[in-house]
Amino acid sequence: MANFRFKQLHKDPKTRARAGEITTPHGNIQTPAFVPVGTQASVKSLTPEELNTIGVQLFFVNTYHMYLRPGIDVIKKAGGLHQFMHWDKPLMTDSGGFQVNSLARKASLVKISDDSVQFQSHWDGSTHIFTPEKSMQWQWELGSDIHIAFDDCTQYPVTHEKAKESMERTHRWAERSLAKHKKISSSFMVQGNAGKKKTKNQEPLTMNHYQALYGSIQGSVYEDLRKESAKFIANMDFDGIAIGGMAVGDTKYEMKDVLAWVMPMLPEGKPRHVLGVGEVDDIFMMVESGADTFDCVAPTRLARVGTLLIGNKPINKLSNNPIKKHELDITKTKYEKDFTPVEKGCTCYTCTNFTRAYVHHLFHVKELLGYRLATIHNLFFIHRLVSDIREAILENRFLELKRKWL
Amino acid sequence: MANFRFKQLHKDPKTRARAGEITTPHGNIQTPAFVPVGTQASVKSLTPEELNTIGVQLFFVNTYHMYLRPGIDVIKKAGGLHQFMHWDKPLMTDSGGFQVNSLARKASLVKISDDSVQFQSHWDGSTHIFTPEKSMQWQWELGSDIHIAFDDCTQYPVTHEKAKESMERTHRWAERSLAKHKKISSSFMVQGNAGKKKTKNQEPLTMNHYQALYGSIQGSVYEDLRKESAKFIANMDFDGIAIGGMAVGDTKYEMKDVLAWVMPMLPEGKPRHVLGVGEVDDIFMMVESGADTFDCVAPTRLARVGTLLIGNKPINKLSNNPIKKHELDITKTKYEKDFTPVEKGCTCYTCTNFTRAYVHHLFHVKELLGYRLATIHNLFFIHRLVSDIREAILENRFLELKRKWL
Repeated sequence: MANFRFKQLHKDPKTRARAGEITTPHGNIQTPAFVPVGTQASVKSLTPEELNTIGVQLFFVNTYHMYLRPGIDVIKKAGGLHQFMHWDKPLMTDSGGFQVNSLARKASLVKISDDSVQFQSHWDGSTHIFTPEKSMQWQWELGSDIHIAFDDCTQYPVTHEKAKESMERTHRWAERSLAKHKKISSSFMVQGNAGKKKTKNQEPLTMNHYQALYGSIQGSVYEDLRKESAKFIANMDFDGIAIGGMAVGDTKYEMKDVLAWVMPMLPEGKPRHVLGVGEVDDIFMMVESGADTFDCVAPTRLARVGTLLIGNKPINKLSNNPIKKHELDITKTKYEKDFTPVEKGCTCYTCTNFTRAYVHHLFHVKELLGYRLATIHNLFFIHRLVSDIREAILENRFLELKRKWL
Repeated sequence: MANFRFKQLHKDPKTRARAGEITTPHGNIQTPAFVPVGTQASVKSLTPEELNTIGVQLFFVNTYHMYLRPGIDVIKKAGGLHQFMHWDKPLMTDSGGFQVNSLARKASLVKISDDSVQFQSHWDGSTHIFTPEKSMQWQWELGSDIHIAFDDCTQYPVTHEKAKESMERTHRWAERSLAKHKKISSSFMVQGNAGKKKTKNQEPLTMNHYQALYGSIQGSVYEDLRKESAKFIANMDFDGIAIGGMAVGDTKYEMKDVLAWVMPMLPEGKPRHVLGVGEVDDIFMMVESGADTFDCVAPTRLARVGTLLIGNKPINKLSNNPIKKHELDITKTKYEKDFTPVEKGCTCYTCTNFTRAYVHHLFHVKELLGYRLATIHNLFFIHRLVSDIREAILENRFLELKRKWL
């Protein structure tokens, strides 16, 4: 596992929360870390330089979307995703399994067999087939630093029987994913020498680096299945562990339960990623359970509808949704003449230079700069929150910080 | 005219082209200068810092749009447009006359009398009245460095009779605009002391600076009217001269004729602005006729549909439209795997860091970053072109440069 390491630096004495560091060929990741999503090879509206300034350490790109547009061959020819997007820090890709399945919820566009998943493109209806082997090949060609094994992410709710069937398929696919990944990996002859040796077939350098593979735990909301899956995946030779099928549940309680069952079974020496979760209260819950990284579209998606994350809004006592108190709807008329920053004390580019009134105006007249300023603030907010959490863990005051927030 | 000056630095020996410098309270403008348009208080998708990096010296904001959204009172309360938008360089506003009239072309939403223009909002259909006095007051409250007198910009084509009537109204409104502007100006007691003395009523500092007023020449495509208008406006005590009603014509020949009639009649000591014109061939034509500044939405509007300006595309011999050879449609499939920069040799942010393939992809999947990267390149392209033209004028090789381009 040359060029990919995880080091646990400190563990909170009262919870499972931990601070660590992941080493990848494109740099280190201080954990816990939030992973923004650049679905279509772009973190909505922002440049790589802006992501750097915000403090983003790595981001997530969806293999499914890359496969359809621009096509894996385009990225491969570009020299990999890093080159294509002009991003030189770590990248993470998923297997495509989640997107392929989430389509199935809306229409019967997906056929799943033990061998493969057949689906129709959301762009033009054309038919495509994904297999664990293809997913591994494609992620390698995308050249991301962390891949996810191809998994079967069931719908929700699902019967125990169906969930078990799906989990067992996920395990068979995990084996096929790992075998294929190792095969590609060895053919690149890069173990221990990433970036030094040229490959036989003169692949661009960006693909010629060690690329890690995380296994994915499934099992829906069933304790026995989640534990069985955790045990199975933990025993395999993956570089890290992903917990999948989390964002599909109805309630945050189920999510918390799943992490409470799974996390204690995972080896301390491997990094743990929670797929598709990342609202403010989720972040505390995931970190408390022992998660190291987590990707989520929430901060960027909220930004695009004018919902800005803030830390100092008075709690609305009538609301029992703990999230709401961290959101400000900038489209409301009351911000028309509010010449204070989006969030008082925030040092992001948006809050340093612009007022709520200006951002409100930009949203009101649908100016693109509005989405940018909102996205910058929301990502900065989440990055700062996770940095603060990391610092609190290192100083044994994680629960204190959590109480202050929730 | 303290804090506003125009200095002609050099005149091309073979044409009317000239290089100069406009001094404003927010800094100097090297002319000729292209003026990008920030219609709704934002140059589409870009931050002020990006505009600075591109080399933008000033930009244009539409009073009509500011009046409707967010409302002049909001900008006034913010401390003026500079503060509202976080832009500390020169700004130009128009009178609202053009927008009010351009609506009339689409529907009978406008009623023009000698006293005022009554129109319905394009947002919600509500009724509003503009007068020369109101336009002056609003532009002052917006705090831009260069205002335009309220004018009657006729439709095109228009009969000589109608054009004459409209021109005469424009002249009466020019007198009312100038009188009102001088009245406001003196009430601010800032002549010769901009930014030093506090005003009686404690208006924010941004409005407490000398704000220049340009008179606007009209007369459609009729030589006698244009000359009469030029003479009338040139004889008034304006800080500069705007040539209006240019962007409404059908052909570039008419535009060229109008400038050829008007320009020789204007005083050398005042800056000349052409309203709403700025494609590549227009720029050479305007500068050659003696224009100093010109605003246009073309570079930013083209960017948003994926049309990128380039200087080195082989001329299509079948096309007799001279513009086309400077345009590249990045949405075309042939750029899918083109890993060269948008324009070879261009040093803009987009061309330095990204490929045609990536920009093509962003447009293909409608990612906001695509519009940004295209806008950055197009504005950089135009700014570089106008800088090159200025240098050529200073070195007596303007026509040589023009031949190279057109």
